[in-house]
Amino acid sequence: MNPLTSKSIPALARYSRHSLVDVCLEEAEKTKSVFTRLYPDAARAAGDHADAMRAAGVELSPLAGLPVSIKDLVDIAGETTMAGSTALRDTPVATSDAPVVKRLRIAGAAIVGKTNMTEFAFSGVGLNPHYGTPVNPADDEIARIPGGSSSGAAVSVATGLCVAAIGSDTGGSIRIPAALCGIVGFKPTARRVPTAGTIPLSTTLDTICAMARSVDDCILVDSIIADNSLSIPDLPLAGIRLAVPATVMLDTLDSHVAASFSRALALLSAAGAKIVDVSFTLLGEAADLNQFSGAESFAWHRGLLAARESEYDARVAKRIKSGAAMSAADYIDLHKKRRDWITRMEDALGPFDSLIMPTVPIVAPPIAELEASEEAFFKANGLLLRNPSAINLLDGCAVSLPCHEEGSLPVGLMIAGPAMADRKVLAVARAVENALQSNQ
Amino acid sequence: MNPLTSKSIPALARYSRHSLVDVCLEEAEKTKSVFTRLYPDAARAAGDHADAMRAAGVELSPLAGLPVSIKDLVDIAGETTMAGSTALRDTPVATSDAPVVKRLRIAGAAIVGKTNMTEFAFSGVGLNPHYGTPVNPADDEIARIPGGSSSGAAVSVATGLCVAAIGSDTGGSIRIPAALCGIVGFKPTARRVPTAGTIPLSTTLDTICAMARSVDDCILVDSIIADNSLSIPDLPLAGIRLAVPATVMLDTLDSHVAASFSRALALLSAAGAKIVDVSFTLLGEAADLNQFSGAESFAWHRGLLAARESEYDARVAKRIKSGAAMSAADYIDLHKKRRDWITRMEDALGPFDSLIMPTVPIVAPPIAELEASEEAFFKANGLLLRNPSAINLLDGCAVSLPCHEEGSLPVGLMIAGPAMADRKVLAVARAVENALQSNQ
Repeated sequence: MNPLTSKSIPALARYSRHSLVDVCLEEAEKTKSVFTRLYPDAARAAGDHADAMRAAGVELSPLAGLPVSIKDLVDIAGETTMAGSTALRDTPVATSDAPVVKRLRIAGAAIVGKTNMTEFAFSGVGLNPHYGTPVNPADDEIARIPGGSSSGAAVSVATGLCVAAIGSDTGGSIRIPAALCGIVGFKPTARRVPTAGTIPLSTTLDTICAMARSVDDCILVDSIIADNSLSIPDLPLAGIRLAVPATVMLDTLDSHVAASFSRALALLSAAGAKIVDVSFTLLGEAADLNQFSGAESFAWHRGLLAARESEYDARVAKRIKSGAAMSAADYIDLHKKRRDWITRMEDALGPFDSLIMPTVPIVAPPIAELEASEEAFFKANGLLLRNPSAINLLDGCAVSLPCHEEGSLPVGLMIAGPAMADRKVLAVARAVENALQSNQ
Repeated sequence: MNPLTSKSIPALARYSRHSLVDVCLEEAEKTKSVFTRLYPDAARAAGDHADAMRAAGVELSPLAGLPVSIKDLVDIAGETTMAGSTALRDTPVATSDAPVVKRLRIAGAAIVGKTNMTEFAFSGVGLNPHYGTPVNPADDEIARIPGGSSSGAAVSVATGLCVAAIGSDTGGSIRIPAALCGIVGFKPTARRVPTAGTIPLSTTLDTICAMARSVDDCILVDSIIADNSLSIPDLPLAGIRLAVPATVMLDTLDSHVAASFSRALALLSAAGAKIVDVSFTLLGEAADLNQFSGAESFAWHRGLLAARESEYDARVAKRIKSGAAMSAADYIDLHKKRRDWITRMEDALGPFDSLIMPTVPIVAPPIAELEASEEAFFKANGLLLRNPSAINLLDGCAVSLPCHEEGSLPVGLMIAGPAMADRKVLAVARAVENALQSNQ
């Protein structure tokens, strides 16, 4: 059995890093569409170095020599960053690693490969016409979507290839695939992690962040990529006030999501948490305000589109081009309205420790269904982005963690808070994870 | 003689605040177009309070009871902020003082009135068709422009009515009138002073700041409105490297400005400063990048323009409406290009303590000339904004201080640096001021 499928990084302490990197690379070679590139030599060198240091009596940093994957929109020196597209193939290679990659290398991580993604990070579904679509490992019978845009990232962790996967989250691209694949995703407050050396989708909303297999593992990776260790208190659930927002966020839940969410709330309530139903009508304004990525991606892509539009996924090109029509004044107003909305949201959040809701209202649909129907694709995409994107709009932070009964399709539970509430959100998420696991 | 015409605030220590406020209010009543509103009761109350505290043995804070004016785009609780226009007359009154006003009141300043300005802060000339144009006090024979947009502010200080005047600087609106009226103006790094409670021109470039009669007085007011006392070192001029940028900034200097600037450089050089001629070709890119105020002001004004365009100065309305045409993508790119330009400028500035140049290339033109000719107006406006606006684009800071021989028309010398170089720029400006005054 692959020890990398263990729940968390501390449980891997007794294995040689060499053997873990080997298992990862061996399995990775067999996968389809999960990685767009592998770095066997560099990964092995990192693993061997960690083993040698440990043999020399040095205490390893927690991520040293452990396999980590990088979403294909983050620069790695010496190669062209493709972002799940082919349109960039003639672009000059990156001259240096992105800051988050540099930080991971300093921490000794074995960077094993670049992961596949939705082209240019558009859509929460995870289909990719150029490199294929990674299959969600949660269902042995039906090939279901992994969620996106960090599709390969989620599968690289869920299948036990990597202990963590670096990705980005502009409207849920970390949390959606984490929820659909049954792992943990943490989107920190955007400003905490540098976006330099990554291909932007929305410069206003982009967050560079990670998925892993436990809240603690997410905390560890966050401390490295943010270059900032948050001290996360052990929070007893008793007395914690969790707000369940009724507006929009609970609409059209499928039955398995609804049942899993209700069960989770009952368990948390039994553990002493105070579950408060709140209307939060402000959330009804979020969809109209979530208009940043059109103009911002058009500004970045217009030169490339002019030269290479035929290589784009037509659905992606269409969405990008829709941003051409926005005026500067409307864009400026949009920023102003967002700031005003954030202020009102933060006031409304004041009485609560966190928001709690289903990360996404559906389980992963079959790939074939969404490939067959444009309508089904856009409907699923809208549903997947709906809840997570409200937190990006809030400039907030959120954890998605599994809340389904073992053996059933994965369902994500989202714990969310406003900007710079990362410590609180992570502390609540860890307490929630403990409460749910002791009932697994 | 009015003791307020004394050079600096410390020299006023021996006067009763009551008498100083009285002199100010008495003279202010006689002026035309300098103030749009006076607060005699509140100003007297502040003066009397300072006197009473001093009589009780309390050490006064340096600005306590001293007359200060506020540009008419800064909120004062209980009245509508007009911004030199009439179009806002039906707008609800401000419900609280702007943060900078609150800070001045806490420091005990006697806020004597609101000063006239160019409508909505557009243009560096200072003409105002609604409230009249304050006359530059530097010339007894010809009525010359005061410079703008903080026109009344400059005249309130230059005529000895106020020890300091609060205004705003988006492309030179503090430094231009300071230069033309022969006083000192300091534009700090924008982020150091809150712009809340003021009417914006360009949210990217706006800076709230002040003019006074010496660099030290500017430092004092800055410490209050920024709520942050900078400790300014006594810098010997010997060995200081001052860069004179040849590109654009020295074009078309009129003969009096050229002679005054040369004389100042010779004096500074004699005092040991190292004057370095540098081409600084990057400054040639500034004009093309200075396109923020169009779209940003259009975003703010479009509702008001739809309702009240006939009340706007036609030249102001035309400039605002030109911002409607910019696309969001172009605006986003403009920000990106500006950030890139700032980085390259900061690299180029590295070897120098400060930039030094004429604040504006001309002396104050006669009001009648610019009122008579649209062409002369726009030509003068372009010349006035040219040098100062490059520093706003840089997100930098700058002092304008007088460098003309006594008895001649005022000429401003600008000492400038990049973002957050405020301490250095103020220290250099104080050393330069000392060197020039000892040769007056």
